[in-house]
Amino acid sequence: MARIAIIGSGFIGRAWAISYARAGHDVVLWDAVDGAPEQAIDYIKGVLSDLSENGLLGDYSPQQVEERLFTASTMEEALNGVEYVQENTPENLDVKRKVYAQLDAAAPDNAILASSTSAILPSSFTEDLPGRHRCLVVHPINPPYLVPAAEIVPAPWTDPEVIERTKELLISAGHAPIVMTKELDGFVMNRLQGALLNEAFRLVADGYASIEDIDIGIREGLALRWSFMGPFETIDLNAPDGVRDYVARYQGVYEQIFTTQQRIVDWSGEVMDQVEADRRKKLSADKLMERQVWRDRRLMALAVHKRLADEDIGK
Amino acid sequence: MARIAIIGSGFIGRAWAISYARAGHDVVLWDAVDGAPEQAIDYIKGVLSDLSENGLLGDYSPQQVEERLFTASTMEEALNGVEYVQENTPENLDVKRKVYAQLDAAAPDNAILASSTSAILPSSFTEDLPGRHRCLVVHPINPPYLVPAAEIVPAPWTDPEVIERTKELLISAGHAPIVMTKELDGFVMNRLQGALLNEAFRLVADGYASIEDIDIGIREGLALRWSFMGPFETIDLNAPDGVRDYVARYQGVYEQIFTTQQRIVDWSGEVMDQVEADRRKKLSADKLMERQVWRDRRLMALAVHKRLADEDIGK
Repeated sequence: MARIAIIGSGFIGRAWAISYARAGHDVVLWDAVDGAPEQAIDYIKGVLSDLSENGLLGDYSPQQVEERLFTASTMEEALNGVEYVQENTPENLDVKRKVYAQLDAAAPDNAILASSTSAILPSSFTEDLPGRHRCLVVHPINPPYLVPAAEIVPAPWTDPEVIERTKELLISAGHAPIVMTKELDGFVMNRLQGALLNEAFRLVADGYASIEDIDIGIREGLALRWSFMGPFETIDLNAPDGVRDYVARYQGVYEQIFTTQQRIVDWSGEVMDQVEADRRKKLSADKLMERQVWRDRRLMALAVHKRLADEDIGK
Repeated sequence: MARIAIIGSGFIGRAWAISYARAGHDVVLWDAVDGAPEQAIDYIKGVLSDLSENGLLGDYSPQQVEERLFTASTMEEALNGVEYVQENTPENLDVKRKVYAQLDAAAPDNAILASSTSAILPSSFTEDLPGRHRCLVVHPINPPYLVPAAEIVPAPWTDPEVIERTKELLISAGHAPIVMTKELDGFVMNRLQGALLNEAFRLVADGYASIEDIDIGIREGLALRWSFMGPFETIDLNAPDGVRDYVARYQGVYEQIFTTQQRIVDWSGEVMDQVEADRRKKLSADKLMERQVWRDRRLMALAVHKRLADEDIGK
């Protein structure tokens, strides 16, 4: 088991701490704000108890996982003896540059420096570092202790051995790493999400369907199959002779569609008035936080379902 | 309860028959091929028993549902006294035109004529019919008895009252109808799927990620939330002040991505060699049918999970 530092103990950092400590690693939390790591651990205790009740802590008790969580009062203390660092500071290029210079100076030579950034390319804040070969992005979907996918995004100079060790660490923690061969804006998941959202906003802006219609089409339609197969396996099973047969049958339909999918709608423009009005009719603003709790309970129940279905029916 | 005709008893038709009969309707199956309706009913019996074991037949026994299934040896016999027709003939414009002329001539005046087509616009095969006001598309995702979403697509001349009655029929059968305001190539679901697939093929063609990476990003990532919320509710809950706040924070990231999402990759071109090779490495061609059975078992288990989670945690 490794010793892991969490740099930045906000929502992403504390969620990673759960994921890594559950996998048996010692996890040290640090934050630029005094007291934040302690607050994070209080929060984590509540989550561990929920996870345990749902059978999502493996063989461990909440207390056993808690005992692997530590706080540090300086970044240097947090980095002492670690093999892996998960950085979760604000999404700002100057902040990332400054923090990475400090991390590279203070972390043990062979420690991996992974950033949770969702939108900043790793090359943009690691190029001038002596240890740039050990820097990369590991981008989660929140919360990582319930959502297995995580994107490994290397800079051009990231050592393949660092990518490999990161991948193994994630897999051993129950994650499903996506390993990009090179960096690209939006990585994989936000590019897929963005393509779908752009079409969704277009359909609403052009008056073809409501936002509730779009949500129905995904949550009561497409995402059911996607939630255990993904889009390529879905189409592979949707024609008698597999994916090539599917494309031969349906590419014509999709090509017709594509010609009308290249106009970009301004999401924050006129269409937003309708999107926001429709959402607030379904859920008033003062209920957003309550609904986030609901979402996390649904995610947890889905994680339990998927684990059981993997065992009973097969992966 | 209504009397419903299924015109074309292949995979889509027989699946609709299950959905409507389970809802308490009498369902008459007909097919241009002799004996096909009887074969369909044999198939349905097996499904009903699975559904019953999983608690997905409501208050009915498989036998009670079976007793509502009938076969007809002529189209006219099938249409006798029906209030709703679900047409599932081959995806070919000439076939649809010919069949719709027959349906409109033979069906009772007030019967709705709904087509399961996934890709042919309703205006293209109903324009010249005397009863064109009662024609529309009701496009399912297969199998409709496990996937609630269904797209209602009107032609420009479809009577709003016909749309409303269709919507009510679908809702009362446990479906979640998407009601388009006007027809559009690909409807809603294939447009969303196409947008996502196009980006997926681009990422693979440009060497950024493997098809397995894409499938992981969806099935272990994005589609978990989408499977119970849809994409708009997902982003509404992903920023402290809801969807407008989300767009204010992240539109910049997505805009950067969009500029590189307007090139169309030929899915059947060079990239298909890799896509097919990767899929066949994961699943050999002779296992495709077996895997389709697995998919339907997973879909059934997911339907059970969602029903329970809706009850326990809330919709």
